[in-house]
Amino acid sequence: MSQWAIGMDLGGTALKAAVAVRDGDVLFEESFPTEALRGPRAVLDLLGGAASELYRRAASRLDPASFSGIGLGAPGAVDRLKGTLSHPPNLPGWEVVELRRELQERIAADPGLSCPVQLDNDANAAAYGEAVYGAGRSFPDFLMVTLGTGVGGGIILDRRLYRGPNGTAGEIGFMIVDYAGSSLHAGIRGTLEGLIGKERMVEMARRMIADHPERSLVADLCHGDWASLSPRHLETAALDGDPAALEVWSRVGSILGAGLAGVTALMDIRRFVIGGGISAAGELLFKPALAQLRRSTLPSMHEGLAVVGAELGNRAGTHGAAALCFEGG
Amino acid sequence: MSQWAIGMDLGGTALKAAVAVRDGDVLFEESFPTEALRGPRAVLDLLGGAASELYRRAASRLDPASFSGIGLGAPGAVDRLKGTLSHPPNLPGWEVVELRRELQERIAADPGLSCPVQLDNDANAAAYGEAVYGAGRSFPDFLMVTLGTGVGGGIILDRRLYRGPNGTAGEIGFMIVDYAGSSLHAGIRGTLEGLIGKERMVEMARRMIADHPERSLVADLCHGDWASLSPRHLETAALDGDPAALEVWSRVGSILGAGLAGVTALMDIRRFVIGGGISAAGELLFKPALAQLRRSTLPSMHEGLAVVGAELGNRAGTHGAAALCFEGG
Repeated sequence: MSQWAIGMDLGGTALKAAVAVRDGDVLFEESFPTEALRGPRAVLDLLGGAASELYRRAASRLDPASFSGIGLGAPGAVDRLKGTLSHPPNLPGWEVVELRRELQERIAADPGLSCPVQLDNDANAAAYGEAVYGAGRSFPDFLMVTLGTGVGGGIILDRRLYRGPNGTAGEIGFMIVDYAGSSLHAGIRGTLEGLIGKERMVEMARRMIADHPERSLVADLCHGDWASLSPRHLETAALDGDPAALEVWSRVGSILGAGLAGVTALMDIRRFVIGGGISAAGELLFKPALAQLRRSTLPSMHEGLAVVGAELGNRAGTHGAAALCFEGG
Repeated sequence: MSQWAIGMDLGGTALKAAVAVRDGDVLFEESFPTEALRGPRAVLDLLGGAASELYRRAASRLDPASFSGIGLGAPGAVDRLKGTLSHPPNLPGWEVVELRRELQERIAADPGLSCPVQLDNDANAAAYGEAVYGAGRSFPDFLMVTLGTGVGGGIILDRRLYRGPNGTAGEIGFMIVDYAGSSLHAGIRGTLEGLIGKERMVEMARRMIADHPERSLVADLCHGDWASLSPRHLETAALDGDPAALEVWSRVGSILGAGLAGVTALMDIRRFVIGGGISAAGELLFKPALAQLRRSTLPSMHEGLAVVGAELGNRAGTHGAAALCFEGG
């Protein structure tokens, strides 16, 4: 019978979990509130409890002998050798936690469940999910970019995760595309994240539109409340043909494309899968990104360039974490 | 007996060739004028003749049974599968040449010499040379940057060349570090090569110094002939404490460092070996580059950051090409 695994995606607000079958479907998924403020111990208990619950539900339909383990994607710096998670940005009080050991201790009591735990950071898990189940299935090599509050990434080479010598690879948000510019983010000048992370993008739109609100639908959409302006407003306005909103997407896409061009030049990666909340804008974003990527790339590297949307949405992390158990990622 | 190989480095002005022993020394080296204007056939004959000559000299001292083959680094786009060299920038009239087949045909007549030919581009061969025989010996993972008229690169991961899915990886000169800037190079805005390639660097120095020549030693060094200004003049002046020249190196190093920071963020590569003519400036260049690299990198990635000079000079290409025969690179 086909192998199956549990994939979990730990976030600051929700713990998502899924049961996935190798070469097949995701059977079911669940979401639990993280309640991060209750501290590490409570969250670790939640992880163990969620794993037990999903295992029980799945084991009645799937062969326990084919259970391959638990995969877990976590925010922050993950050390796969030590099994630790360090300084997750949205989990207060964590510092450095021996995440793998803590989870293994909690599932040890459950005889069927006791199993290997595959740990990785959430961006890598999401990239691997898209590689195995999503938009990356037809791309042996690609970079997944997650565009949201932060700009993260995961690299797939020859259908496997490229993690780098120290396990920190994929941080496309910290590539420098504007070394001489004025944007400072996390103390660094001109990073991609500092230019097109969600807050910066909204700021850019505010600057472009707020002075002449009469020229743009965006003012209406956010009812003149510029503090509430979101990428969603800019998407709606752009789809309605609003020139100012279109210009924002064009600029954001163009900056993204300049970053991607660096990835193509350096790593010879030519396919890009874009996920995260901001990617909902679809071609509004992908088209200018691809155009800039082509403009910024040597003609000898034009073949195969592609910028496409992720397919799994916020399920990429759980799917990828489960898939790590089948291949070892 | 230890394996040995012939390494050749084909350039627009010289063909360099060497005989190298595995785990050992380079026995001897020779240089031949390429005479590129005589066209592809003459250059291919030169390649075959040089290989024969070196083989004859070496075979009298080394065991012919331990001969591992010929490695060849070539300028331009090399297709290792097809064995072709396309559009080498400094070899007029080449278009696309079946370099491996042409060389193999020429050495086939020589019964001892008939052997596998390992082909790669010159930047990769140089990086591999530094990895096996030079500054990269203690670095399992590094990027070699060649700073000259162009800005090229070669990537070593786990002591092997990383060539990328299509074989074009390592082009750090075409990473975008100034997407909004005014520099256009090969039609692309804000590339590293377009900012700190030799001509651009000299241009930058001219702009900074020519208006106030009385403030800088550089005017004396180039006898007021700004057209003759070279990186060497800037190096001499900077070593003499000339503030303008120091400022040029600081700027060039800083831009280089911003590019390297992108490599660290994306690939988790933290060691950089700098070669090429401009790297003769040594710490004048490496120090500001490392400082900028640290400033532009997340603290979690600071461990192990290093910017060092290449050790083999213009012999890196022949050494690396020979070494490709031992390992398959």
